[in-house]
Amino acid sequence: MIVTVTPNPALDVSYRVDRLVHGSAHRVRSVRERAGGKGFNVSRVLHERGVGTLAVGPVGGVLGESLRADLVASGVPHALLEVAAPTRMTVAVVDDEDATLFNEAGAALPDTEWDRLLDLVRSRLAGARAAVCSGSLPRGAPPDLCARVVAVARGAGVPVVVDTSGPALLAAARAGADVVKPNAAELREVVAADDPVAGAEALRAMGARAVVLSLGPDGLVAVTEEGRWRAAPPFPVRGNPTGAGDAAVAALANGLVERSPWPARLRAAVAWSAAAVAVPVAGSVDAALARDLHDGVVVEPV
Amino acid sequence: MIVTVTPNPALDVSYRVDRLVHGSAHRVRSVRERAGGKGFNVSRVLHERGVGTLAVGPVGGVLGESLRADLVASGVPHALLEVAAPTRMTVAVVDDEDATLFNEAGAALPDTEWDRLLDLVRSRLAGARAAVCSGSLPRGAPPDLCARVVAVARGAGVPVVVDTSGPALLAAARAGADVVKPNAAELREVVAADDPVAGAEALRAMGARAVVLSLGPDGLVAVTEEGRWRAAPPFPVRGNPTGAGDAAVAALANGLVERSPWPARLRAAVAWSAAAVAVPVAGSVDAALARDLHDGVVVEPV
Repeated sequence: MIVTVTPNPALDVSYRVDRLVHGSAHRVRSVRERAGGKGFNVSRVLHERGVGTLAVGPVGGVLGESLRADLVASGVPHALLEVAAPTRMTVAVVDDEDATLFNEAGAALPDTEWDRLLDLVRSRLAGARAAVCSGSLPRGAPPDLCARVVAVARGAGVPVVVDTSGPALLAAARAGADVVKPNAAELREVVAADDPVAGAEALRAMGARAVVLSLGPDGLVAVTEEGRWRAAPPFPVRGNPTGAGDAAVAALANGLVERSPWPARLRAAVAWSAAAVAVPVAGSVDAALARDLHDGVVVEPV
Repeated sequence: MIVTVTPNPALDVSYRVDRLVHGSAHRVRSVRERAGGKGFNVSRVLHERGVGTLAVGPVGGVLGESLRADLVASGVPHALLEVAAPTRMTVAVVDDEDATLFNEAGAALPDTEWDRLLDLVRSRLAGARAAVCSGSLPRGAPPDLCARVVAVARGAGVPVVVDTSGPALLAAARAGADVVKPNAAELREVVAADDPVAGAEALRAMGARAVVLSLGPDGLVAVTEEGRWRAAPPFPVRGNPTGAGDAAVAALANGLVERSPWPARLRAAVAWSAAAVAVPVAGSVDAALARDLHDGVVVEPV
């Protein structure tokens, strides 16, 4: 079972409109609501693929109830911490041309609530084979939150994948996360290195055991203690890239559970990630496409 | 006490962003939530001005709870009907240039719920001196809903102001509403008349006892059994015109209670309406400005 931690959940609301015009009033043609947050998406992918998972995160207020109801409806196992701060919302306005996103920052939680969240994670790690800490932190959250998840998991003998950015990414690397998964921009933001492999090595030097760098449609670069590889999909997949990174994280966490060799993990991560692009919503993988992609993924040492 | 009925409440959410750019992701700088709906705004204005009121409307789901909480916080007396259909949301994205609005349509209620709403209105009309039916109807609502409010109120000897549009406006006029308050566009939509006074007379001929036509910053035109008047503010007021019509409706309902002569009602309606423009949120009137405007309002027979 893989425990995922989502420090900054959101109720993701999607509005379909005819055409977004600045300064106008729009009739919303359809409304879709979904429990959002990168860790939740990782759990969705794992659950869909038959891998045991538990989604952990703080929820509060009326939107927190909506988020919980969506997790219940989707069947994803979860252990949510009730907090006083209201869960935030994100609104995506979609017209024929594009999606325009409005992301609330999220309310600050007192430190005692973060302690309670870590206690909850600790209590649910018994029996877990891997853990994930994924997504942004709300303002005011301790920047070492994912690092503390790494420490708690280490105490339970559970390896951890961390997918976050900024100071939280640095702290997780320093805490010795088993895998960190920045994208190229997130890597550049925290280490002064033009070359992605050099940047990944810098994170390894800080303490991360492996760094998997996502390159969007070009696949992944992995810098590990076993070696360095580049993995790319055999053909481009068009669609919605939101959630592709979460599918890669799900595959990497599953690789930790299966203790598969790194090239096999990267093959799965690229296949799941590209096959997630073909599904309009985040947190789901086109299973047939993932199978079609899998054997064709090109994995080369770098 | 003035009972207001809001058939299609919404939780109004307002997002402040730096600059709205189509196809981009925006950090929301601040979030404001408010119980929205034209009848609720009328009750807010009345409550603020010390006139007894009761806000009635259907609420459901988690957003319905937020809406109720906002009414509780604002102190506006209310009697909300719990329904299964979730309360809708509207989102206003405000940048330095403009406001861009996204209006959910609202979920359909079964006819039995509308019957229950009318039962609730009937039960609360004892002791009422006037009633208001204000705002749009959700899809699937009976177009004669405000007309049925008029009939129920007539049974209790209570006069009614109706502020709605389309078939609902026509039905309310035919039901003999004491006052209907369309704006120029709403009037043109339902009667084939280029001249506003002729259009208003057409609604009177259908059964409305008085028609008050709002002309935005130019004030009001009233066609009544006592006579016809035009009323205009003495000077223009800049600000947010949202809610100006609701302030006018509040004044007109208060005029029914006070049985004041029509010119006095129109003077108050123009003063409250223009003074509402000076307040950034709907449902509030700048009291000092309303006093300053009041005596200067120009009321002329037409």
